[in-house]
Amino acid sequence: MKSKPKILITNDDGIFSSGIYALWEALSQVGDVYVVAPSDEKSAASHSITINNLLRVKKVKRAGGFEGWSVSGTPADCTKIAVKEILNFIPDLLVSGINKGSNLGNNIMYSGTIAAAAEGAILNIPSIAISLDSHNVKDWSGAKIEAIKISKSILKNGIPKNTLLNVNVPYCNSEEIKGVKITHQGNQYFKDEFEKRNAPSGSSYYWMKGEIIDKDTSNQFDGNAVSKKYTSITPITFKFTDTSYFNTLVDLHEN
Amino acid sequence: MKSKPKILITNDDGIFSSGIYALWEALSQVGDVYVVAPSDEKSAASHSITINNLLRVKKVKRAGGFEGWSVSGTPADCTKIAVKEILNFIPDLLVSGINKGSNLGNNIMYSGTIAAAAEGAILNIPSIAISLDSHNVKDWSGAKIEAIKISKSILKNGIPKNTLLNVNVPYCNSEEIKGVKITHQGNQYFKDEFEKRNAPSGSSYYWMKGEIIDKDTSNQFDGNAVSKKYTSITPITFKFTDTSYFNTLVDLHEN
Repeated sequence: MKSKPKILITNDDGIFSSGIYALWEALSQVGDVYVVAPSDEKSAASHSITINNLLRVKKVKRAGGFEGWSVSGTPADCTKIAVKEILNFIPDLLVSGINKGSNLGNNIMYSGTIAAAAEGAILNIPSIAISLDSHNVKDWSGAKIEAIKISKSILKNGIPKNTLLNVNVPYCNSEEIKGVKITHQGNQYFKDEFEKRNAPSGSSYYWMKGEIIDKDTSNQFDGNAVSKKYTSITPITFKFTDTSYFNTLVDLHEN
Repeated sequence: MKSKPKILITNDDGIFSSGIYALWEALSQVGDVYVVAPSDEKSAASHSITINNLLRVKKVKRAGGFEGWSVSGTPADCTKIAVKEILNFIPDLLVSGINKGSNLGNNIMYSGTIAAAAEGAILNIPSIAISLDSHNVKDWSGAKIEAIKISKSILKNGIPKNTLLNVNVPYCNSEEIKGVKITHQGNQYFKDEFEKRNAPSGSSYYWMKGEIIDKDTSNQFDGNAVSKKYTSITPITFKFTDTSYFNTLVDLHEN
């Protein structure tokens, strides 16, 4: 008998979030699930790692048989320590999420959900980041169905090393999802502002706040596809060299 | 008379680090320098931003006329709040550094030095990240000369929007630097391990530790060029779509 696939799940909203619980429920139908996730919320942690502080690892239990390990670090830390120390094996699949809120366009740069999956990709684990396009989620069922479908496909087909899938699911009933679009990273971004406030003591401080700007008009781009109720899947990789600008730079030092 | 260029400098080692002081000294010879940097060391902060906590901004003075603003956040926060709130103008150039230790290959993903410059690039500011290849720096003079040279060139020639220059300087006397190589992001990475220890109370914890692995043999790659005493300049951008894998994915949802 073929053994069940081993699936590592993690996230950036923390091990006590509702999104990781939904993912655990969903993927328990696909394989043996191992949960290693941050002890606290680590949204916008990006690819930060903990090199100047210690990491604590604790066993966590939640209702319904959910078990896992919490890590006092970032999403990227979680993937690293899961594979190198806690599990001590290479899982067949890594899924990071389900994130409360989408990770689209330019904003994927800030995402801890994606960073955790990127660490998986670097470690040669087929890796998926999955996010639901709502910050006020009452129903995870649509995203759970997509997580199961895409996980099964990837377990069968694999992903090239150093590439991960960035999946974003529209927030609606499963039947309303029009299908899957394989998309390009779009141009959605946050237009940041800073709001100045005064503490009771009189000292001033700031809050960062932002408004999402998305001018893409084609559903070949991630954000536009999700807004049209498609599940968006973008294959992403971390090759940063700007080759188009490369040649014009050759004589930079002689200018 | 042409006005002096306005240069924003920031880093991830913090406003009280020796590297940012060296950069301030160097670039004061090139233009009017504005310093906005983290109040504390934020190495490996990557592109994290502060969305769930407040930000404090304080005036900082150091010896020799060095003035600036410290921000209780990440390198990416610093660039954002500098441009949107503190300066309230778009500088002609942003330089992040001088980082103590190189930012090369795969490891640029974790770098706060690079994230601060990336925020500049997103805001359409010609932006440079500069790092010195030593964690035990006694002499910043070589890196200062390179910072001046490259800054002047970029003020003259510009950089395409959304692209930044990742500069890494070998740690040696300036005369020993063989020249500049325009390089590709290489394949250098940290092989991570976790060391388990016990606290005096008996509880266990971990430290992440790593060993740099660099198998690149050509100085067309960043790490190899620096090891051969060239200053490496890699133009980097943040387009993540893996287009080479794109087409094979079209029918993923039907498999």
